[in-house]
Amino acid sequence: MTAEGTVTAAMLAIGDELLSGRTRDKNIGHAAHMLTLCGIDLKEVRIVPDEEEEIVAALNALRARYTYVLTSGGIGPTHDDITADAVSRAFGLPCIHDEKAMELLGAMYERRGMEFTETRKRMARMPQGAEHIPNPVSTAPGFRIGNVHVMAGVPQVFEAMLDHVLPTLAHGRKMLSVAIISPYGEGEIGLRLGAIQKAHPETSIGSYPRFGGSGFTTELIVRARDESVMEAAAADVRAMLEAIRVEKEASPA
Amino acid sequence: MTAEGTVTAAMLAIGDELLSGRTRDKNIGHAAHMLTLCGIDLKEVRIVPDEEEEIVAALNALRARYTYVLTSGGIGPTHDDITADAVSRAFGLPCIHDEKAMELLGAMYERRGMEFTETRKRMARMPQGAEHIPNPVSTAPGFRIGNVHVMAGVPQVFEAMLDHVLPTLAHGRKMLSVAIISPYGEGEIGLRLGAIQKAHPETSIGSYPRFGGSGFTTELIVRARDESVMEAAAADVRAMLEAIRVEKEASPA
Repeated sequence: MTAEGTVTAAMLAIGDELLSGRTRDKNIGHAAHMLTLCGIDLKEVRIVPDEEEEIVAALNALRARYTYVLTSGGIGPTHDDITADAVSRAFGLPCIHDEKAMELLGAMYERRGMEFTETRKRMARMPQGAEHIPNPVSTAPGFRIGNVHVMAGVPQVFEAMLDHVLPTLAHGRKMLSVAIISPYGEGEIGLRLGAIQKAHPETSIGSYPRFGGSGFTTELIVRARDESVMEAAAADVRAMLEAIRVEKEASPA
Repeated sequence: MTAEGTVTAAMLAIGDELLSGRTRDKNIGHAAHMLTLCGIDLKEVRIVPDEEEEIVAALNALRARYTYVLTSGGIGPTHDDITADAVSRAFGLPCIHDEKAMELLGAMYERRGMEFTETRKRMARMPQGAEHIPNPVSTAPGFRIGNVHVMAGVPQVFEAMLDHVLPTLAHGRKMLSVAIISPYGEGEIGLRLGAIQKAHPETSIGSYPRFGGSGFTTELIVRARDESVMEAAAADVRAMLEAIRVEKEASPA
């Protein structure tokens, strides 16, 4: 479904806590928003548990299919942090204690007068040949290998890492969008809206009902990569809403 | 990875708006929490766009693998609401205007003095033979076919539909959990925590760093289906934290 010139991405969020409902994910929505700003189409998201088989299978499915894969979670020092192992296995690479990461972490613990324990050394592990993604919050780096960008699950750290990653990615032509609020529900506008979508095939027109207690209104989003294409469709949407208004005045329900 | 006696589920959230960052999903976290309360293990979540091929492929992968699949989104009346078509295709069934749904919707629009337009009739579509999932908020039903439960994306409606669905599902033995706050970061406790996990293989011990500006603390969650098994592991975790405290007093950093 990837049109020419578009850049695609998938996100893989890793962690039992997301699937148990204990933690509400904050990273997916943030990544979706930031990628869209860069003109990169987020096409799929998966959430998987802290199980190596599951992470490897999902990662291999996603990295073969999309320009980029972003992961979140599972890169801390404890026994349930197995993302580095799983990513290494997906790429058929040894999972090593990266030399530069060992230096960064070792220096940080020395500055803080803390022991650089075996457990803490786990945070230096990554597939051989991976590049660092800097972590300005808590030092332990994420990493990039191939088209896969491995980041932390803690939102402050994920966001800082993503800020570093985004400028390194190929940016697509930005998807433009305009929002039009319809005071009418989807049932009232759907047929005509479908016709407008058909008449403007280079746009993507989304229709999002909002329930406000007493009834539904609809937010309409017209998206296109070309401004004049978007405006032409948006003009038709506005004309449709005006036509419905006039019809309602002529024959009030 | 499914142990004997466990009941599993996957969730498939459908909608371009979730992938563009325009809408932050609220249904996944809610479903995760509610399923956990019922002793049903949510094992995987996927978010896919409003594209029939994508919905069909994800649905077929998930429904073959887990006891139940819950979907959200794409069952409204507009052109981008294609979940009924995709689910029908995944099951190889015709997508029909369900008679009972037509009656429900027809009666509702009549009561409200509104026309039951072709567009609104789209909300009565579902795979032939599907059972309704009632919608107390806005009438248009969700539906169940096989092990797939198709619900609305609007959170108020999704939640109401899920409340109806949960009592109809087989409930697993509830996963119990206890939270223990560690004032020490993961790097300090990780090795000993890993040993405790190994000594208590019937538990799942999660370790969740929380960044509080000045440093990390750690929330430890011990999970098990048997209370005495859980308490034995939790006692070891508490003893470990006490041991670290005593060591620190003996040799302050």
